[in-house]
Amino acid sequence: MDFLSSFFTLFLGKLQSPTLGFLIGGMVVAAFNSRLTIPDPIYKFIVFMLLLKVGLSGGIAIRNANLVEMLLPALFAMLVGVLIVFIGRYTLAKLPKVKVVDAIATAGLFGAVSGSTLAAGLTILETEGVQYEPWAAALYPFMDIPALVTAIVLASIYISKQRDKYFSQEESLSKQTVTAGGYSSEQGGTVSGGSSNQSTTASGYPRKQPERVKIWPIVQESLQGSALSALLLGLALGILTRPESVYESFFNPLFRGLLSILMLVMGMEATARIGELRKVGQWYALYAFIAPLLHGFIAFGLGMIAHVTTGFSLGGVVILAVIASSSSDISGPPTLRAGIPSANPSAYIGSSTAVGTPVALAIGIPLFIGLAQALGGG
Amino acid sequence: MDFLSSFFTLFLGKLQSPTLGFLIGGMVVAAFNSRLTIPDPIYKFIVFMLLLKVGLSGGIAIRNANLVEMLLPALFAMLVGVLIVFIGRYTLAKLPKVKVVDAIATAGLFGAVSGSTLAAGLTILETEGVQYEPWAAALYPFMDIPALVTAIVLASIYISKQRDKYFSQEESLSKQTVTAGGYSSEQGGTVSGGSSNQSTTASGYPRKQPERVKIWPIVQESLQGSALSALLLGLALGILTRPESVYESFFNPLFRGLLSILMLVMGMEATARIGELRKVGQWYALYAFIAPLLHGFIAFGLGMIAHVTTGFSLGGVVILAVIASSSSDISGPPTLRAGIPSANPSAYIGSSTAVGTPVALAIGIPLFIGLAQALGGG
Amino acid sequence: MDFLSSFFTLFLGKLQSPTLGFLIGGMVVAAFNSRLTIPDPIYKFIVFMLLLKVGLSGGIAIRNANLVEMLLPALFAMLVGVLIVFIGRYTLAKLPKVKVVDAIATAGLFGAVSGSTLAAGLTILETEGVQYEPWAAALYPFMDIPALVTAIVLASIYISKQRDKYFSQEESLSKQTVTAGGYSSEQGGTVSGGSSNQSTTASGYPRKQPERVKIWPIVQESLQGSALSALLLGLALGILTRPESVYESFFNPLFRGLLSILMLVMGMEATARIGELRKVGQWYALYAFIAPLLHGFIAFGLGMIAHVTTGFSLGGVVILAVIASSSSDISGPPTLRAGIPSANPSAYIGSSTAVGTPVALAIGIPLFIGLAQALGGG
Repeated sequence: MDFLSSFFTLFLGKLQSPTLGFLIGGMVVAAFNSRLTIPDPIYKFIVFMLLLKVGLSGGIAIRNANLVEMLLPALFAMLVGVLIVFIGRYTLAKLPKVKVVDAIATAGLFGAVSGSTLAAGLTILETEGVQYEPWAAALYPFMDIPALVTAIVLASIYISKQRDKYFSQEESLSKQTVTAGGYSSEQGGTVSGGSSNQSTTASGYPRKQPERVKIWPIVQESLQGSALSALLLGLALGILTRPESVYESFFNPLFRGLLSILMLVMGMEATARIGELRKVGQWYALYAFIAPLLHGFIAFGLGMIAHVTTGFSLGGVVILAVIASSSSDISGPPTLRAGIPSANPSAYIGSSTAVGTPVALAIGIPLFIGLAQALGGG
Repeated sequence: MDFLSSFFTLFLGKLQSPTLGFLIGGMVVAAFNSRLTIPDPIYKFIVFMLLLKVGLSGGIAIRNANLVEMLLPALFAMLVGVLIVFIGRYTLAKLPKVKVVDAIATAGLFGAVSGSTLAAGLTILETEGVQYEPWAAALYPFMDIPALVTAIVLASIYISKQRDKYFSQEESLSKQTVTAGGYSSEQGGTVSGGSSNQSTTASGYPRKQPERVKIWPIVQESLQGSALSALLLGLALGILTRPESVYESFFNPLFRGLLSILMLVMGMEATARIGELRKVGQWYALYAFIAPLLHGFIAFGLGMIAHVTTGFSLGGVVILAVIASSSSDISGPPTLRAGIPSANPSAYIGSSTAVGTPVALAIGIPLFIGLAQALGGG
Repeated sequence: MDFLSSFFTLFLGKLQSPTLGFLIGGMVVAAFNSRLTIPDPIYKFIVFMLLLKVGLSGGIAIRNANLVEMLLPALFAMLVGVLIVFIGRYTLAKLPKVKVVDAIATAGLFGAVSGSTLAAGLTILETEGVQYEPWAAALYPFMDIPALVTAIVLASIYISKQRDKYFSQEESLSKQTVTAGGYSSEQGGTVSGGSSNQSTTASGYPRKQPERVKIWPIVQESLQGSALSALLLGLALGILTRPESVYESFFNPLFRGLLSILMLVMGMEATARIGELRKVGQWYALYAFIAPLLHGFIAFGLGMIAHVTTGFSLGGVVILAVIASSSSDISGPPTLRAGIPSANPSAYIGSSTAVGTPVALAIGIPLFIGLAQALGGG
């Protein structure tokens, strides 16, 4: 009882933090149809500044860190990224009126990571004085890339199976011939997930290519996204140069203020996207509400295993949970649009921006920090 | 004599402040046809940052304030806002070659408040070490909204009287019939000021609607403007959350620097708009030069009443005078364009931006601060 | 030997500075085709902020400075600006496949000054604790304007000589008549460099106007450029107002951080422009690689004369060398485009941005600082 009551007190206290206040303020401002906007170049620059700062601090930390202790958390991050997509594949995709490719893309976006949510989590952890390994923010790509790759691979498998079914019913006689012909034009025997379903012509469906989705272009596309690029640039500069002075005098002091403005924009965005969600339907809203918390708890559990076995800090466990509960809103969508072109962007972007991200920020972060504090104090 | 000489010394000292230096610098740069520009998204973001900061500090103050002491200054702010429009109605509008609706719109803009001018005033007060109630900046909407509402109402009254006159000369026989028909299509018996003069068709003029102008849409339009939205958002966040840390580490330290850049932009704008003013004519230039100082003195006088009776600080009196002498350049124009569509925007925007705002900044602010210091020291 | 070894150690140390790290980071990010970009309004604002800060600090310094000691360095700056263009005229312009006007324009751009390179040099000097006269940054326009003026004058002389040659071959009989007619329409007997080669019509070439190029429009065009405007605005505000408080609280603390982001953009730009350079050819690449170092050494030598004779600081010598080794990338191109319209912009802009500026930043700055430190310690 003592644990539960202290947890609820802590959880409620987090809800009054200015970071979340700005998020809710943005939602309210947009709901009143205010003409207040943050210009897009400012928004993009703020995201860049936040991720560069997160990367720099991670890089500076890694320079002096014991990389072995990063192994288990990184492995768990990858595992969670893959798992999230499979959970979406066998829950959301099975619901009525939900298209399977849309569901897989949505699960991919919920597995991918939001740099802004991560930044908000780090700020609130620091405000609360919760200790964490500075390299913990560098777990980001270990979850982000596997989730996007898994989603695109699963979508390709599903699409080619559908073709197969269609094919076996319609043209079962000419099977072998077409298959051979279908492969002849491919280099290295692989087909990119993105283009495979566009190459289907009236003359015949290429078939049975599930394991042949190209992984590297998805990884590359993901790394070239502005969010991961900024994060990795910061990491590299933190490891290879000595940016401590510019970090302490510029990136670190501006961090919390820029984040508060980003929260405002995200709140305004969430309200503006509510309409998009309505078109997509209630199952997505339900999934987008539950998924961030479920994913966060799975990651929290795995993080606790690392906490007990290798001494991974409780703050690090929270970061792993926050990364898992976040859904990508900047860099994920273009990767998915290229990787699963048949999926409906308003399904996955609407779910993520209008529900998933606000839930991760306003419920997930205070929940996991409160849980860690209750466990740490217990 | 001692009072006058100390006042002039103080007034001249204010003219050398860096805040006004940036304003004059911007005017000079633009006069030399420099290609130097501050990109528009940056400008908008700076205005947002300044108003959010003003709102936050006001909100934090109100949280611990005695709201009763705000009553009289707020009442005086409303009174000044209404009075300014009536002064314009019975001075500027009576001058030769000046159209009445243009004059009313101009008076409305001079009654409305400029967040930038307010911010400049607050900075110079702080530099000078003049004390003021932190909630004084929250007097902004108490003058802004009544001024805009009054202007739109007066314009509607004038327009419908004109129609009436036209009507009584041309079709005095069919009077009663058309009047009844004119009212039949209205809900709740009111007509919005903005659309009433657009609904006049060949079949007949709706008449006698002066008291029927809808007030709420004007208030709403005004509150939805980006300037008031940012200010009220800051107020709400200051009252309801605990933004002290992000305020002290981000919004407050950046305030003075961002303001200096805003002054630069306003100076450049003032020079660029000089040409616009020439088209509008010398009466507008005369009004735009005298009005900020006259309005400021009226507000200063009322503020002194509050100073003597309820202990309103001399710094607060200066803020009331600065708010009165300022004319809206960001949020006012769209409200007026919607509310008095028949008024010529280059008349009121040109008067405000090219003359009114520079006069309020470069003469008004040092004048009122010098006056307060001379009174305080006397 | 001791001098050489200490010089090389110092030079290598500079290469690891975060300022250059961000430059190289930007080159790498762009080479990986990342979608990371810094929005253009942000970039322009950062350049403005840096140059305003450089101007402010120079102006504050000049207010208390002995202007006589600025004389010799300013004279040397002008000399170097003119010399650089003549060097280009008699080296690059003589190479095969290089058009003379393109070569002169390129030399003009390499003689003009880059505010960003200057800012980077100042930051690294401060990091290294090398002392310099704060007015040294104000040497900028003393080199920038003479270089651009010389380039446009030399180009005009060359173009009119070409016409002369053509003219004397084709129409040698009617010489005197046309010359007289050519001059008749000009005020004050001068022809602007920019328009002279556009006014050639089928009826005949105006001739022999080499010394009659209008100097003032070139100077004016150069001063109106956004970079010099920002610098001179800062200088004027620093001299005439008291901006110390806003300088210390805003412009100075942000300087190093904003510079690091500018370096990133410049690195990205350099990679993106590599393709442009390829079109222009290897002679430009060779010139653009050697010129910044050669120009820097010439200025360093002249600066050492001032160091020995008038006590000009070694830090000031480095600044003179950095200004000479820099090539203009923001404000120079529009001046040249207007002044030498027949020159190919991709020749001079490509040479400057893709090779000249990176060489000045990554080799020039550490080289000259290392040299000064080795000399100062010797």
